[in-house]
Amino acid sequence: MNDVFEKIIKGELPSEKVYEDEETFAFLDINPTNPGHTLVVPRHYSRNIHDISEKDWIAMIKVVRALAPAIQKAVGADGVNIIMNNESAAGQLVFHSHVHIVPRFNDDGFKHWKGAPYKEGEMAEVGEKIRKQVGR
Amino acid sequence: MNDVFEKIIKGELPSEKVYEDEETFAFLDINPTNPGHTLVVPRHYSRNIHDISEKDWIAMIKVVRALAPAIQKAVGADGVNIIMNNESAAGQLVFHSHVHIVPRFNDDGFKHWKGAPYKEGEMAEVGEKIRKQVGR
Repeated sequence: MNDVFEKIIKGELPSEKVYEDEETFAFLDINPTNPGHTLVVPRHYSRNIHDISEKDWIAMIKVVRALAPAIQKAVGADGVNIIMNNESAAGQLVFHSHVHIVPRFNDDGFKHWKGAPYKEGEMAEVGEKIRKQVGR
Repeated sequence: MNDVFEKIIKGELPSEKVYEDEETFAFLDINPTNPGHTLVVPRHYSRNIHDISEKDWIAMIKVVRALAPAIQKAVGADGVNIIMNNESAAGQLVFHSHVHIVPRFNDDGFKHWKGAPYKEGEMAEVGEKIRKQVGR
């Protein structure tokens, strides 16, 4: 693979790096939801949550836990979202595993998706489908 | 603490459980973004990413990696979002650490937040603030 994140990690494309270690690389999103919006990327290639190894997943997610509070504090934010989009339907734009750390402010106006209750009996059916799939 | 998730974990409130182990509990959100929307919660109390222990964080996040593909498949979705909201400003409603697994469909119409580029010189300033905070 030689996707845009691979190029950033290799230094073939510029980035505003905020952290790196042997397994991960973290840099500012160039089109931030809010200033400080950071992407954490494993160096080793995977497409997304469907094929990432447990080792890369844990390495990435440990860095997310370390960086998110530091980023919130650094930009004086009031909260922080951790977001991973997997596949186009979920808003994934670059097909190299990455987690978004998005600082949030009380008055920033970004809306969350509204949920709706299940129809009668639907929740139990969905639960059963998931439990069967998890059990396999 | 005896928040709503604590009550669900203890069985004092009903839930459509899809998975549990010694450290985590996963159940369907009663107001799903899409059917199959699941919450993964550590049994041990923490408020959010600011105070969760590394142990609880890794336990929760390993379960997220295992469940997300199974949930996507179970409901026939085209993608999946992994989302953690930390503090009210970021949309956190229940103050007990939890991760949302949200199945997504190509035509479900949920929009992602639009980003905007930094002003001249702003990205480097923000990067420097974060690197200083991370270094502490």
